Amino acid sequence: MLDISSSPVGPIGIFDSGIGGLTVVKALMALLPGEDLIYVGDTARVPYGVKSPETIRRYAGEITEFLIGRGVKLLIVACNTMSAVARDSISALARVPLIDVIEAGAACALAQTRNNRIGIIGTPATINSKAYLAAIGRFDGSGEIRAFSRACPLFVPLVEEGWLDHRVTRLIAQEYLASIIDEDIDVLILGCTHYPLLKPLLQNIVGPGVALIDSAQAVAENARRQLQALQMLNPASGKAQRDFFVTDAPDHFRRVGEAFLGQELPQVRVISL
Amino acid sequence: MLDISSSPVGPIGIFDSGIGGLTVVKALMALLPGEDLIYVGDTARVPYGVKSPETIRRYAGEITEFLIGRGVKLLIVACNTMSAVARDSISALARVPLIDVIEAGAACALAQTRNNRIGIIGTPATINSKAYLAAIGRFDGSGEIRAFSRACPLFVPLVEEGWLDHRVTRLIAQEYLASIIDEDIDVLILGCTHYPLLKPLLQNIVGPGVALIDSAQAVAENARRQLQALQMLNPASGKAQRDFFVTDAPDHFRRVGEAFLGQELPQVRVISL
Repeated sequence: MLDISSSPVGPIGIFDSGIGGLTVVKALMALLPGEDLIYVGDTARVPYGVKSPETIRRYAGEITEFLIGRGVKLLIVACNTMSAVARDSISALARVPLIDVIEAGAACALAQTRNNRIGIIGTPATINSKAYLAAIGRFDGSGEIRAFSRACPLFVPLVEEGWLDHRVTRLIAQEYLASIIDEDIDVLILGCTHYPLLKPLLQNIVGPGVALIDSAQAVAENARRQLQALQMLNPASGKAQRDFFVTDAPDHFRRVGEAFLGQELPQVRVISL
Repeated sequence: MLDISSSPVGPIGIFDSGIGGLTVVKALMALLPGEDLIYVGDTARVPYGVKSPETIRRYAGEITEFLIGRGVKLLIVACNTMSAVARDSISALARVPLIDVIEAGAACALAQTRNNRIGIIGTPATINSKAYLAAIGRFDGSGEIRAFSRACPLFVPLVEEGWLDHRVTRLIAQEYLASIIDEDIDVLILGCTHYPLLKPLLQNIVGPGVALIDSAQAVAENARRQLQALQMLNPASGKAQRDFFVTDAPDHFRRVGEAFLGQELPQVRVISL
C-alpha cells in the first residue's frame, strides 16, 4: 500500500473544505515542529456539508491527487464531512498512510472514557452522517459504549464571528449541551475542526468532570505515532516549511485563519483543482 | 434591448446562490399569482459571499443563460452578492428586463424615508461591497441622504436554525442594531433575502418609528410595475406553474425552503450548470 517514493523528508498533507483544518495544522506544528506541512482548503467550494456524497467524493479525490502529486508521506483528512463520506475513496487514491479526524477523535474518546458514556457534538451534516457512532462501534471491543450526539449548527458562524467568549455563545452552548450533559457523559468529542476555539467556554459549561476530545489534537498525536512506527519522522532540524493553498479569494481565509492557527499565516496561494 | 421572443405568457426567472431567494418567490406569488415562475438556487456552490468577483460573474452568467434558454420574460437577481458584483455582466447576457434586490431595496428606502437617514443590514459580503450605498447614491437626487450600515453575519445561520423568535436571536439583534438605531434612522433596509423571516423580531427591536424595507417585497412590487408598463402581465387566469431547480442535494433546500416560502415546496429538480 505504501508508495515507494515516500520518504521521511516528504511533507505531511492536510486538507479541509475550508478553514477549520487549520486547528489540525496548529496541533501538528506544536507536536511535530520539524515536519514540513502542505495545507489545502477548498474555499471556493466550502461548505461541503450540504453537497451530495458523489460530489464530495469527487472534490476529495481532486484534492488528494493534488497532494499526492506534491510527494506527501502522510495524508490527513481534517474535514469531518470528507472523513464521513469519502474516506474509502480517498484511501483508494492515497498510496500513503491516511488519518482522518473522525477515527482519530473516536479512538481518543474510547481511550479516555471511564464510564463508557460519550457525547458527540458537530455540524448537522456530521451528526446526521452518524460517522462518529460508526467509528466508535468499530473500535468498541466491549460493546458497552453508549454515545449521545447533538448537532450545533450555530457554533461555526459564532467562531467565524470571533465570539469565542460572548454571553450569546454561552447561552447557545448551554441550550445545545443540556440534553447530553443530562446523560452523565464523561467525555465529549468536539466533532468539528472549528470547535477547539470554543474549548474554554465549553469546558466551563460541561464542568471539570468531562474530558473534551479535541480531534485536532487527536489527529496530531496519531500522526506522530504512525510516523514513529514507520520510521518516517523527519530527521531535519532546520526550519520546517508550511505551504497553504486555497481554491478562491484568500482574504477571509487569511483573516479568520490567524485565530485558528494562533499566529500569522505565511503566504497563501490560490490553486484551481 | 428586449428579446423579440419575450411574451406575456413567458415565466419570470428568479435566481439566488441558494435558498434565500425563496422569500422573493413568496412575495411574487402573493402579488402576481397568475405568473409562472422558474427559480434557480445554486446550492452546490453556495455561499457566493466568499468567492472572487470573477468566479461570481462566471456562475451568474451560467444561471442567466439557463433561464434565458427557458424563455423567461423578466429576470430577477434575488441574491445580494450577485446583485452587488455581477449586475452588469448579467445585464449584458439577459436580453430581457432585469431587477435586482439591491436596486429595488434602495429605491424603496428612498421613497419611504422622511428624515433622510437610512440604515442597512446584510451579510459581511454585501455590506463590504458598499453596493447599497452606491445604489442609494445613484437614486439620491437631493444629495442629502445619510446611510449607516452594519454587517450581521449570524442572522443567516439563525434563520436556517429556525430561531426566528429565540431570546438568543433577540440578544444578537440588539447588539448588531444598537449603533444604527443610535443614528436616528427612520427606515432600515433588510439587505439579505434571509432577513424577512426575522421581521417581527427586528420591528420589535427598532420600534414602530422605523420602517423595515423588505427587499423581497420591493422586488415583487417593482416586477409588477415593470410588467404592467411593458404590457407583459400574464393574462391567463389558470393555475400558475412554479418550477424549482437546484444544483445539488435538494434535501436541505426542501426542508428549510418551506419556512421561506410559507408553504410546501413542489417538486425540486437538480440541474448541473
